[in-house]
Amino acid sequence: MRPQRTHQLVLSAIEDDLAAGRLGLGDRLPGERALAERLGVSRPSVREAIRVLEAHGVVRTGPGSGPEAGAVLVADPAAGLGAALRLHVATNGVAVADVVGMRLLIEEWGMREAAARRPDAAALAAAQHALTAMDDPALDRERFLDLDAQFHAALVGLAGNVLVTVVMTSLRGAVRGYIGEGARRLPAWAAVADRLRAEHHRIFDAVRAGRAEEAARVTRAHIEGFHRLTR
Amino acid sequence: MRPQRTHQLVLSAIEDDLAAGRLGLGDRLPGERALAERLGVSRPSVREAIRVLEAHGVVRTGPGSGPEAGAVLVADPAAGLGAALRLHVATNGVAVADVVGMRLLIEEWGMREAAARRPDAAALAAAQHALTAMDDPALDRERFLDLDAQFHAALVGLAGNVLVTVVMTSLRGAVRGYIGEGARRLPAWAAVADRLRAEHHRIFDAVRAGRAEEAARVTRAHIEGFHRLTR
Repeated sequence: MRPQRTHQLVLSAIEDDLAAGRLGLGDRLPGERALAERLGVSRPSVREAIRVLEAHGVVRTGPGSGPEAGAVLVADPAAGLGAALRLHVATNGVAVADVVGMRLLIEEWGMREAAARRPDAAALAAAQHALTAMDDPALDRERFLDLDAQFHAALVGLAGNVLVTVVMTSLRGAVRGYIGEGARRLPAWAAVADRLRAEHHRIFDAVRAGRAEEAARVTRAHIEGFHRLTR
Repeated sequence: MRPQRTHQLVLSAIEDDLAAGRLGLGDRLPGERALAERLGVSRPSVREAIRVLEAHGVVRTGPGSGPEAGAVLVADPAAGLGAALRLHVATNGVAVADVVGMRLLIEEWGMREAAARRPDAAALAAAQHALTAMDDPALDRERFLDLDAQFHAALVGLAGNVLVTVVMTSLRGAVRGYIGEGARRLPAWAAVADRLRAEHHRIFDAVRAGRAEEAARVTRAHIEGFHRLTR
């Protein structure tokens, strides 16, 4: 086996500190120089490790010239998973059909669970907001698709599993370029948007009324229909 | 908005090349020096970007002193997603309960689908191999848990969605330390292992016989039971 790379020593040390509770969310990492001295590695190796943590959505670095300006532990798993998935879709290492299949699996479950919890108006406020905003006929495609993503995430979020919502958001982000391009190629966007609006209202009504199986069924038809159109 | 960081310019340039098909799986990235010159950035910035791509499982760097020894585009999404999820579990940014919930969602679906496809002996060979290996009473816990993970991945893989299998494997990897520790704390590992063996055989038999709902139900009880034990 090849010896571990230097930046991986830094990653392992930070992960050990996290696992042991010596570091936690909101904490600031030691400075680049301090880490380099403690671990006996070069400062560029420390910086590589911090870039990796940043890419995974575990660290946010402050403004300034680099990580030494302050790297804080954060929880942004959607950023980390989304970036990785987007790259794998770009290399065709992950097929768009599999992304759609996974979205179906997650959203059918999420909408069913959300409906079963009989959410009240307060719980539904974020989804309601996106739904109403999408009714504006003057919206352009990009803005519509952003609100569309918010609508789905707000409803699936009601199912109560944060990781599921994060993965769903990441999947959506991974095929966002693909979906946007598909939507741009559609000759009759206005008609498509009308159909999506009507379907969103049906999903929302089913979730609000607690009709779990209908919410799941309409969601499946909605996602499959859109992907058939944009393919 | 803060200007984009230098290493992100490199990441964007490579992602553009991927999206446009100028780079694809198996291709070698230009050398560190060539990339630095082309993009007008420093070599350490290029190296940071390559470390990030490596962490996402999109690039593998060859042996030698660094990325200039050769960075090849690969598809290892499980490595990328697994590392990110493991870190987020370590910071408590993602709750173990949510990881278990997502595993249930994926595996119930996966086992149901696998059974519905009525896999033949050839398709079942990998799962059968892990199942038989786990029957060895002399296995230690760590080896048993490795085979256990292989068994689940092999069966869910039969459902045919590579991304779903990758996410399942990543979830498993993210809580592997947690599960291993839970298993180490169990006073009566031999009895637990016997129960897991029996459950694995029931899952396998249900999938082989095409009893989709039973496969899903037994899988849920198996995962929930184990997590109750190790909590």
